[in-house]
Amino acid sequence: MSFELSLNTGTTPNLSLEQAVEAAATAGLTHIGPWRHLLDEAGGAQRSATIIAEGGLQASTLCRGGFLTAASEQGQQEALKSNRKAIEEAATIGANNLIMVVGGLPSAAHILGGTGDPADKNIVAARDRVARALDQLVPLALEHGICLVLEALHPMYAVDRAVLSTLGQALDLATAHPAEAVGVVVDTFHVFWDPQLHQQIQRAGHERRLVSYQICDFNLPIASNALQSRGMMGDGHIDFETISRWVATAGYRGPVEVEIFNDQINSQDAHLTLNTMGERYESLVLPHLEQAAGIQPASAIN
Amino acid sequence: MSFELSLNTGTTPNLSLEQAVEAAATAGLTHIGPWRHLLDEAGGAQRSATIIAEGGLQASTLCRGGFLTAASEQGQQEALKSNRKAIEEAATIGANNLIMVVGGLPSAAHILGGTGDPADKNIVAARDRVARALDQLVPLALEHGICLVLEALHPMYAVDRAVLSTLGQALDLATAHPAEAVGVVVDTFHVFWDPQLHQQIQRAGHERRLVSYQICDFNLPIASNALQSRGMMGDGHIDFETISRWVATAGYRGPVEVEIFNDQINSQDAHLTLNTMGERYESLVLPHLEQAAGIQPASAIN
Repeated sequence: MSFELSLNTGTTPNLSLEQAVEAAATAGLTHIGPWRHLLDEAGGAQRSATIIAEGGLQASTLCRGGFLTAASEQGQQEALKSNRKAIEEAATIGANNLIMVVGGLPSAAHILGGTGDPADKNIVAARDRVARALDQLVPLALEHGICLVLEALHPMYAVDRAVLSTLGQALDLATAHPAEAVGVVVDTFHVFWDPQLHQQIQRAGHERRLVSYQICDFNLPIASNALQSRGMMGDGHIDFETISRWVATAGYRGPVEVEIFNDQINSQDAHLTLNTMGERYESLVLPHLEQAAGIQPASAIN
Repeated sequence: MSFELSLNTGTTPNLSLEQAVEAAATAGLTHIGPWRHLLDEAGGAQRSATIIAEGGLQASTLCRGGFLTAASEQGQQEALKSNRKAIEEAATIGANNLIMVVGGLPSAAHILGGTGDPADKNIVAARDRVARALDQLVPLALEHGICLVLEALHPMYAVDRAVLSTLGQALDLATAHPAEAVGVVVDTFHVFWDPQLHQQIQRAGHERRLVSYQICDFNLPIASNALQSRGMMGDGHIDFETISRWVATAGYRGPVEVEIFNDQINSQDAHLTLNTMGERYESLVLPHLEQAAGIQPASAIN
C-alpha cells in the first residue's frame, strides 16, 4: 500500500488519543500522527502504543520534538532532555518519525511561554544552535531507529517557532547526518510558496530524506491567530496537484498526514472533519500522487 | 553623501504629497519615496515633480508598478499599460527606481479588488507570466533610464500580492535583463528570515542590482490585517545590525527608505513618526552601515 491517509491529531484537538484512534479507524484510516501531550494524557507512551495497536492503526509520526534555539546553557539542556524523551516515546509507539519544529528567536521565547532575551534577535546564531543540538541528538535517534524529521515552517513563524524556513535549508542542515537519522517533511502549508520547491523536493528524494508528506491548505485572510490559517484541502490557494506530483515523482510512497489548525474545523464534529478529509484527499491529492507514481487507482481495480 | 534617510509615504498615509514633502524636509530628510496615488492626487507627475523639488527633496523610488500575474489577455494588457505609465511617472519625478510588486495568484485576485479565476492556483505559471511581462517593459524602462526594482515580498503575501518571495528568485528573474533596467530591493521585513539572505545580498551587489534598501521591523503577533504587521525599527524582532552590515558590505550606498504599514504608527502625528524614525535609524541602522562601508560617522566629524 502507498499513500495511506493519516490523521494528525492537531486536526481533532478535542479528542483524546483513544477517541482519535477510534474516529480514524471508523473513517477507514490506517495511520495516525499523535501529538505528545495526548500520550501523556493517555497514561504514557506504552499505554498509547497499546491504544494505537488495539485500534488497528499505525503511528505515522510523533509530533513533536525541537525548540532547540535557547541561548542559555540551562535552556539547551532542558531542550535536549525533552527531545531525548520524545525519541524514546516515538520508538515506544512505533512511529519511525519524530517531527522537529526547531524553535524561534530568544527575543520571542516569551510568546510561547518560555524565557529568552528580548535583545537577542540573531537568527544566524539561533540556526547554529539548532545544528549543534542535532549533533547531540542523532546518536540516540540512531540507537532507537528514529528519524528526526526537520520541518521547515512558513517564514511567518520564523521569529517565534522555527528559524528553519525552507526545504533547502532543512536539507543543508541534514547533510551532516545519515539519512536514517535526519530526514525532512514536506508540509504544503509551509512550503507551497517556495520558488525552489520542485528542485528541493527532487533533492530530498535523491538524498533519501523525504520521509513525510503533510497536507492542508493555505487560507486567506491570515487568521487573527496566525497559527490557525491552515485550511481543509481545496478551501485555500494551494496547488495540490503540482506539489503532490513532485512528491510522488521524488519517490515518496508513505502515509499522507492531514494536519489542520483552524478554529472552525477544530471545533466541529470530528467525524465530519474526517469525512471531508477523506473526500478532499481522494479528489484533490491522491489521484495525482498515484498517477505520478504509476499506480493504478484503487477505484479502477475494483 | 551615503545612506540618506528617506520617507516612504506609506509610513504617513494621511498626508498629501505636499504635506509629506514638508514633513520630511522639516525633519531634515533629503529623500522621499512617494506612492503613485499621491501623484494623482497632487495633480499628476509633473506637478508632483515640482512639489518635490521645491521642497528641496529628491525622489528615491516610486511605489509601485507590478501586478503582472493576470492570466487573461485583457488583464495582462491593462497591467502593461499601467506599468508603462508608472515608468513615465518615475522618470518625470526624477526617481531612478520603480518598485515592482509583481502580483499574486489569479485565485486571490478578488482580495485586492481584481477579477481572477478561483480555480487558478498555479504559482509556477504565474511566475512565468511575470517574466514575460518584464520582457515587455524593459525596453521602455531603458529608454527612460528607469530601473524596475523587483521586490521579493514576505511569503505570507505570496498568494495575494507577490509570487516573488526571495531575493534569490528576484535575481534569477533579473538575469535576462541589463542591470540598469532590472534591479532588486532589500526590504528587511520581507527577507530577514531568508537562510540565503547573506549570500543573495552579496550576489546582488556583485551583479550591481542592489538599488534600494528599505527598512522596518517585523512585529508579533501578526496584525489582524497582515499587511499592517510592519513595525518601527527596534519594536520587533529583526537584527538590523547584521542585515545592514551585509547591505553596506555588498556596496550599497544609496538612500535608506522607511516604509511602515502599521495602524498605530500610521494614525499618529507624522512629525512624531519622523522623529522616531530618525532616532531609531541613527541608533540601530546607520552606525552599522557606516562601519561596514568604512565611513567616519557624521557625529565623529563634527
